[in-house]
Amino acid sequence: MRAMQKHFQTIALIGKYQSPDVSEAMLDMARFLREREVEVLIEQATASSTGIAADFRVATFDEIGSHADLAVVLGGDGTLLTTARRLASHAVPLLGVNQGRLGFLTDIPRHDMLARMEEILAGRFSRDERMLLDVEVLRGDSRVFQTMALNDVVVSKGDSGRLIECELHIDGEFVYSQRSDGIIVSTPTGSTAYAMSANGPILHPGVTGIAVVPVCPHALTHRPVTLSDRCVIDIVIQPPHDARIHFDGQARFDARAGDRVRIRRSDHVICLLHPPGYSYFSILREKLHWSTAPKLY
Amino acid sequence: MRAMQKHFQTIALIGKYQSPDVSEAMLDMARFLREREVEVLIEQATASSTGIAADFRVATFDEIGSHADLAVVLGGDGTLLTTARRLASHAVPLLGVNQGRLGFLTDIPRHDMLARMEEILAGRFSRDERMLLDVEVLRGDSRVFQTMALNDVVVSKGDSGRLIECELHIDGEFVYSQRSDGIIVSTPTGSTAYAMSANGPILHPGVTGIAVVPVCPHALTHRPVTLSDRCVIDIVIQPPHDARIHFDGQARFDARAGDRVRIRRSDHVICLLHPPGYSYFSILREKLHWSTAPKLY
Amino acid sequence: MRAMQKHFQTIALIGKYQSPDVSEAMLDMARFLREREVEVLIEQATASSTGIAADFRVATFDEIGSHADLAVVLGGDGTLLTTARRLASHAVPLLGVNQGRLGFLTDIPRHDMLARMEEILAGRFSRDERMLLDVEVLRGDSRVFQTMALNDVVVSKGDSGRLIECELHIDGEFVYSQRSDGIIVSTPTGSTAYAMSANGPILHPGVTGIAVVPVCPHALTHRPVTLSDRCVIDIVIQPPHDARIHFDGQARFDARAGDRVRIRRSDHVICLLHPPGYSYFSILREKLHWSTAPKLY
Amino acid sequence: MRAMQKHFQTIALIGKYQSPDVSEAMLDMARFLREREVEVLIEQATASSTGIAADFRVATFDEIGSHADLAVVLGGDGTLLTTARRLASHAVPLLGVNQGRLGFLTDIPRHDMLARMEEILAGRFSRDERMLLDVEVLRGDSRVFQTMALNDVVVSKGDSGRLIECELHIDGEFVYSQRSDGIIVSTPTGSTAYAMSANGPILHPGVTGIAVVPVCPHALTHRPVTLSDRCVIDIVIQPPHDARIHFDGQARFDARAGDRVRIRRSDHVICLLHPPGYSYFSILREKLHWSTAPKLY
Repeated sequence: MRAMQKHFQTIALIGKYQSPDVSEAMLDMARFLREREVEVLIEQATASSTGIAADFRVATFDEIGSHADLAVVLGGDGTLLTTARRLASHAVPLLGVNQGRLGFLTDIPRHDMLARMEEILAGRFSRDERMLLDVEVLRGDSRVFQTMALNDVVVSKGDSGRLIECELHIDGEFVYSQRSDGIIVSTPTGSTAYAMSANGPILHPGVTGIAVVPVCPHALTHRPVTLSDRCVIDIVIQPPHDARIHFDGQARFDARAGDRVRIRRSDHVICLLHPPGYSYFSILREKLHWSTAPKLY
Repeated sequence: MRAMQKHFQTIALIGKYQSPDVSEAMLDMARFLREREVEVLIEQATASSTGIAADFRVATFDEIGSHADLAVVLGGDGTLLTTARRLASHAVPLLGVNQGRLGFLTDIPRHDMLARMEEILAGRFSRDERMLLDVEVLRGDSRVFQTMALNDVVVSKGDSGRLIECELHIDGEFVYSQRSDGIIVSTPTGSTAYAMSANGPILHPGVTGIAVVPVCPHALTHRPVTLSDRCVIDIVIQPPHDARIHFDGQARFDARAGDRVRIRRSDHVICLLHPPGYSYFSILREKLHWSTAPKLY
Repeated sequence: MRAMQKHFQTIALIGKYQSPDVSEAMLDMARFLREREVEVLIEQATASSTGIAADFRVATFDEIGSHADLAVVLGGDGTLLTTARRLASHAVPLLGVNQGRLGFLTDIPRHDMLARMEEILAGRFSRDERMLLDVEVLRGDSRVFQTMALNDVVVSKGDSGRLIECELHIDGEFVYSQRSDGIIVSTPTGSTAYAMSANGPILHPGVTGIAVVPVCPHALTHRPVTLSDRCVIDIVIQPPHDARIHFDGQARFDARAGDRVRIRRSDHVICLLHPPGYSYFSILREKLHWSTAPKLY
Repeated sequence: MRAMQKHFQTIALIGKYQSPDVSEAMLDMARFLREREVEVLIEQATASSTGIAADFRVATFDEIGSHADLAVVLGGDGTLLTTARRLASHAVPLLGVNQGRLGFLTDIPRHDMLARMEEILAGRFSRDERMLLDVEVLRGDSRVFQTMALNDVVVSKGDSGRLIECELHIDGEFVYSQRSDGIIVSTPTGSTAYAMSANGPILHPGVTGIAVVPVCPHALTHRPVTLSDRCVIDIVIQPPHDARIHFDGQARFDARAGDRVRIRRSDHVICLLHPPGYSYFSILREKLHWSTAPKLY
């Protein structure tokens, strides 16, 4: 039991938002951990939606950030993204358990989770650090919004119309002005999410780059560009159109013409843990059907 | 004169292959440098095709590599690629002067070259390091070919037919098997060359990544993937088709079914010098017509 | 003067919406036509925004549809699209004069418009018929909206979120279910507008086809498909998301989950007139910079 | 037995080239047909590779063209393409039986072929006409090559180098000059073959259009264009590079700089028969994995 205690004395469990159907898995996991003398924290909202609060200690995200040595997410990639953004300023590593459909971030299948957790408690795991983006919205001299994103920041047309016009500046240098449905700024983690639908490049998590991907640009030569992770990226929303900004497809902010969206790599990183046998390419192959690649002709 | 001598006491001039029309520019440059007490070396083949050997010292690429503090290339990006590959194992920085059409690597226009050289001699320049690829072709236990590439390695169908079949392995892990016209492995420098035609990602030279770009893959989900520059990439040519391998679009090797093409980042780098005011994005904008982006509707 | 009268005894002039700056060109054209004994109608809204109503007869779109032999549009492609939709059920041919920037539909430059009109009055012109789409939105047993489109029908995510889910049925057969930002159904005319930004196919106006183009589909193999113009296309909006439907980027309808958008070729066509020398490919070449195609390497 | 005789009194069987493994299926089919009093012809090369000549009448393609009421192809799409090109000038309809992997053209699975043939003999089938392309290669005043294609004509770089330069003319009008790996001219049938790998548009067989698809064009705006099937398409190979031309990926011709490849719709059509239940979209859905479309996020 020693090795395990060294790694993880307190483990938090976080379930998919308002999903009572994860309660059984969560209870299995909680009991499994308690039997192994790990202290279990159940995230507050999860506790109330699953109703498993009675026997375990309930904790807020802040308390989890302060006390847990590991946060186990039961849900899909969306749940892990939320958790990552809530815990980003703490150094709690994350472990993702999916509820049936393989995720890029939630790579452990539910039916296998206890065996995998046993390995992780025994210290058999790999660490996988993912970059985060810091985002500010600047209006004149003041900062009107600030957040972090693990996948992407999407500046897109809001209600008002069918397009937006943006200027892109990199490290203070004007790069282009663009009319489009939007611009995605994506980490390697986000490169297999929305950015991929917009023909963005797939970036292995080991690449220290940030992709800037136009969505339906009016000019045909506005291709995605991948930048160094040391760049400061400014997207300036041109009149007359306002824009809507999405962060990881979850939070959103309604920006006005003239606002400047400033994006750079965060000082924080997210640390994912994976059990032995984890393979990024294996997930990519399954997600993209490479394993059963259609031979068309 | 001191600052200048500190930087560059010996400068080599290399002209576009078999192009007598660069001789005037070359002579202008050579005299300009001599007046400033720089020793001038004229590359051997350049000397014979331009006929300006008489007054200047002629040197092989190896001699240039050993003695020159700077190599000035007069030609297009192709000439600079050749020079880079010939001088890769030396630490001679390169300066590219184009003959009329702006190049990604040959960014100084000929009409401006003497003013720009003056600035460079005075120590006003930026350094721009570019990664190179080391390539080996392995056949059974032996290495049958080896070279370097600054832009790309292209494994493609040869004479025999309309497609090749390749397996991709990264760091020893099988990633996919693919039927296609070919596979491009590209540096950031090469990402705006052939790889871009095949829908590859544009990688800023500051990104430490290597792009693997399929050419006309039979399966629609075989998208380009950008990898860390620490990866070892193996492309294994599957029977029954042979393949042809191109390096920077210049050297080529006819590979057989079963051959393994191993590609990794080289320990060497190419160092480009740029005069003040150089901007990667400005070149990209001009090349992609971003400055005059067609507004279609 | 006879030949001209045979062709066009009454010509309507329609200006860009609320754009007083077309009034000078409009006045030039109106006087030019009056001198040639053509009766001139000024479209009502145009008359009031340009203030040139005093000397000419003002007419509604319906009156134009009933009485005019030709409608001249001064504005951009957007103005011509509006006019086309307003006059679609009449058989009035259209002539497009742009205000400086070449349009796909407004191909006559303003500085040249009188010389071109002279040719057209003399009977020297080509006819260019363009298909229209009929669109209905069906909710249960009733039809809740109906319109026509010359360019495209775009079913897209509305306010509610980041995606919609739609089923595509063709001639009553289920084709696919898709999660995406939207689906564009485009005529050949619309294929060089929004559909092109979404990687849709360019269809020459002579092709009797309708393109179905997904916008940022989540699955990588959801490619655009071009169908026969005899198909009935149904897009069924799946719960839980509502959708917004745009017609030629101008009219819009807020649809609900469960609504069925039914699109088929209209019985009406739009007839564009072009002066001698008109070339579709020449416009395409200029718009896509083919004439000055960037040679990247 | 009457209905059947009305439709098909003589049926030819054609097997995959040099593939003894189709002999069992072929024998099954031949005996099945003979029992139903259909006269069976075995194509000559098929007879010799399968060795089933003994009991059945052997016939050349020309004899099949003259005498058969139906040609049954046992193989893949490649075999059907060859057969189509050999029989194109005759009016023999084709029926495609695949050997395990669903084809776009060979849609009947082998295990089901006898039941399906029964239906077809009983007159229960649909007819599916596919356009063919006529191709000529013109050199100065003479025609140096001529053939037909059901899928595509591919003008591509040959041995000599890494690119070709071509001019495209449509109905005698210059459209563009292009540097690329090649140009594909594709029928709707070919639009799901090689053209799809090069990002060409999917054209339903009901669309009367011809797609011109650049392969890795150097200029980013050289997008595929779909033309009316009444166009005459000329591709003129520019010096200094020669080109290689492939027809349906099978026949090939080595063209020289200056040669003009002239392509237009053929007067002939290929008629495919399909048993009840055939669905183009169903095949497309299976081939593109739409039925199991990966939900990436």
